[in-house]
Amino acid sequence: MTAQQTPVQALPAVLERIDAELDNSLARLFDFLRIQSISTDPAFAPQCRSAAEHIAKDLASLGFDVSVRPTGGHPIVVAKVANGGAGPNVLFYGHYDVQPVDPLDLWETPPFEPRIATTPDGRKIIVARGACDDKGQVMTFVEALRAYKTVMGALPLSSITMMIEGEEECGSHHLFGFVKDNAAELKQDFALVCDTSMWDPTTPMVTTSIRGLVYEQVNLTCADRDLHSGLFGGAAQNPIRVLTRILSSMYDDTGRITIPGFYDGVSDLPPDIKKELASLDLTAEDFLGAVGLKAPAGEKDRLLIEQIATRPTAEINGIIGGYTGEGAKTVIPGKAMAKVSFRLVGDQDPEKIRTAFRAFVREKLPVDCSVEFGNFGGAAAVQLPFDSPALGKTRDALAAEWGKKAITVGEGGSIPIVGDFKRVLGMDTIMVGFALDDDRVHSPNEKYDLTSFHKGARSWARILAALSV
Amino acid sequence: MTAQQTPVQALPAVLERIDAELDNSLARLFDFLRIQSISTDPAFAPQCRSAAEHIAKDLASLGFDVSVRPTGGHPIVVAKVANGGAGPNVLFYGHYDVQPVDPLDLWETPPFEPRIATTPDGRKIIVARGACDDKGQVMTFVEALRAYKTVMGALPLSSITMMIEGEEECGSHHLFGFVKDNAAELKQDFALVCDTSMWDPTTPMVTTSIRGLVYEQVNLTCADRDLHSGLFGGAAQNPIRVLTRILSSMYDDTGRITIPGFYDGVSDLPPDIKKELASLDLTAEDFLGAVGLKAPAGEKDRLLIEQIATRPTAEINGIIGGYTGEGAKTVIPGKAMAKVSFRLVGDQDPEKIRTAFRAFVREKLPVDCSVEFGNFGGAAAVQLPFDSPALGKTRDALAAEWGKKAITVGEGGSIPIVGDFKRVLGMDTIMVGFALDDDRVHSPNEKYDLTSFHKGARSWARILAALSV
Repeated sequence: MTAQQTPVQALPAVLERIDAELDNSLARLFDFLRIQSISTDPAFAPQCRSAAEHIAKDLASLGFDVSVRPTGGHPIVVAKVANGGAGPNVLFYGHYDVQPVDPLDLWETPPFEPRIATTPDGRKIIVARGACDDKGQVMTFVEALRAYKTVMGALPLSSITMMIEGEEECGSHHLFGFVKDNAAELKQDFALVCDTSMWDPTTPMVTTSIRGLVYEQVNLTCADRDLHSGLFGGAAQNPIRVLTRILSSMYDDTGRITIPGFYDGVSDLPPDIKKELASLDLTAEDFLGAVGLKAPAGEKDRLLIEQIATRPTAEINGIIGGYTGEGAKTVIPGKAMAKVSFRLVGDQDPEKIRTAFRAFVREKLPVDCSVEFGNFGGAAAVQLPFDSPALGKTRDALAAEWGKKAITVGEGGSIPIVGDFKRVLGMDTIMVGFALDDDRVHSPNEKYDLTSFHKGARSWARILAALSV
Repeated sequence: MTAQQTPVQALPAVLERIDAELDNSLARLFDFLRIQSISTDPAFAPQCRSAAEHIAKDLASLGFDVSVRPTGGHPIVVAKVANGGAGPNVLFYGHYDVQPVDPLDLWETPPFEPRIATTPDGRKIIVARGACDDKGQVMTFVEALRAYKTVMGALPLSSITMMIEGEEECGSHHLFGFVKDNAAELKQDFALVCDTSMWDPTTPMVTTSIRGLVYEQVNLTCADRDLHSGLFGGAAQNPIRVLTRILSSMYDDTGRITIPGFYDGVSDLPPDIKKELASLDLTAEDFLGAVGLKAPAGEKDRLLIEQIATRPTAEINGIIGGYTGEGAKTVIPGKAMAKVSFRLVGDQDPEKIRTAFRAFVREKLPVDCSVEFGNFGGAAAVQLPFDSPALGKTRDALAAEWGKKAITVGEGGSIPIVGDFKRVLGMDTIMVGFALDDDRVHSPNEKYDLTSFHKGARSWARILAALSV
């Protein structure tokens, strides 16, 4: 123990320690994985509490001041340690709960009996529910901290706050209020999250943006009842016809969305970032082939990776109207309904998009057709500034560990809590994770590559050192 | 009894007889109405048989050679009398079965206890299930025959064949095969049907055409599974988007259908007929107001009455895809489905329309989208030639009875048996009926105006006389 060492000075010893500790680290992860913390099933509430207490105890052993906070659902573990070292105050977020395990008969071994297996191509993997999502990923960070604690006698950075929740897999229903209620305690210089993936097994990745979302329901009404198409066909307005006409007019022939003002706040990527994305050469065959598709269907003048990660979209998520059973029924329905959502990027304003969409629909309504809208949520996109110093340090650290440039990619989906960190706490988030596409997250035989776990811990050790200067 | 009298000579006495017999005619109709011949409910099979036997016995009393023919369902009554008089051989079609009566609590009096009531505006009405549809209408024809039998001792025309079925209200499933199997017996010079309505309470009407129908189901498939719109949104083809684009492109801005070849075989109406239709001045307020609509939605350059009666249509009868439950689900579905039907007129060929529609869809399919079609039936339109001599005589007879020109209108819906008369037996049909829009057919408190019943019988008496010369 050398109290005067900085994290940068300690790093070689820390990495050595992580290597030497691997078997013990695995044993600790296995203990965590054995806890059946299935959050969505009330029958497993005691196991969720056990998992919370397990991680709380582990963090306490590293010097954290830990509390297991009750919520209306599963508890949230909050741990804080003020190290007084150089560098920022950070919040680390992860979750201790896991997905259900059914269909159980598809598991090759019991989901809560973790084991090391070897893939046909020779990779060592950790197999268990939660091995990756998110227990394995959380423990990469914890093991990096543990190595620092051993080597330096203290943890790096000015302070580290940990928030490990237990409802991520069932909607994080109590987390949002918790963050709001404990804003002062949780707001740090920025957040770190380990719940994302690598670009591929050898290329590290920082997720720098998350698309926002506006979700709308459109209910059209024409006649005040269903009509017989023989009697009224040709004269009565058909709400399905109106709905299909309006929804299909949301797109032009190039795949661009035609709603006026839709692209306000959407910027082109910085040239270097775009060049970097282009160099990844994501092909339709690779990305779409697995689900039976061949051709990108979005804006024709954009890279596939832009279409899924950095460009806004409009999707019709559902539609229903008239007769949809077996056989024929010659009805002209009185009503038709669609669900439409928009993925947002950059500075697109969810409420402006919602208003523009509603105006777009109303403007195209014929006589004899009225509309009601339902609001099913909206969230702005989250974008980590490309010039964030912490991002640059994180990328450098990852590059040093993996021997390969760490790419920055936008996440197509939404991680709501990261949006809340930004909106409620005014805090950016750096998302680094070591999951791989074949990890079978949420599916039977979930796994985490031993390399992800081991080099993941080493990556965090390097990131913490980089952030400390 | 004056055997030498012709129907034309006998007509004044026949009309007098109908007037004098009204109370007895009503008593006979009430006996028929008391039989609970609900065809769709197997529990009422004995009552259906009773109704068949009832009408059979009545026809036998008029000199018909009657048989109650078994089918796989309810029996069909066939009656024939060769009168040897002047004029054509005709087939009269009607049905003895009725609709179910629920919701029973909405009936002011029991549905099978017929009564005479008076409307607030002073009209006498017959209230009972089947009062109009079709027992009351059938009996207008039978009472006209009865009066001839009394006055002339014989029935008019060369021969009259009656076919009264018992499954019209549940699909006429056994009728089509029956007509085919008994073609020689049933094929006459033309058919008479009394199951349609007046134009309004003072204007008689002959229904001269019935639109045909092509019914298609369209199943689109894009990805081989449902996708998360966060992950795949922007890149994956969305079958709802494809479906809405294709279906909405079936119509141009004037309401015309854009499927190539769709209007082949569609002729404009003869100018005199069009003028006659225009003079009816059917307003959107009158026709559409009752169902909460205001504006005709069909071809902009056509009269409303053309849109519903003499022009072909394309309707989307149903559509479904993606998430349609409560709230939000960010799915890009793998599949979407629609039901589309076409009402046909003139010489439009159902199979050519089907083929053209399928080609239209296929031609617009993007990469990554495949289609399967389902065929749910097709029938050509039926058109009584406007220059048919029997039609002219029928119109003149109706005009004489009602003191007002009888209009000819196309029926928007399909009466399948009339199509079969044309296709299987090569026989035109003259449809004359005395129902009114407020008869509550298929609904509680079904009624038939006493005037419809009385003047209906007188109308048939005049028509039979007119046809005999």
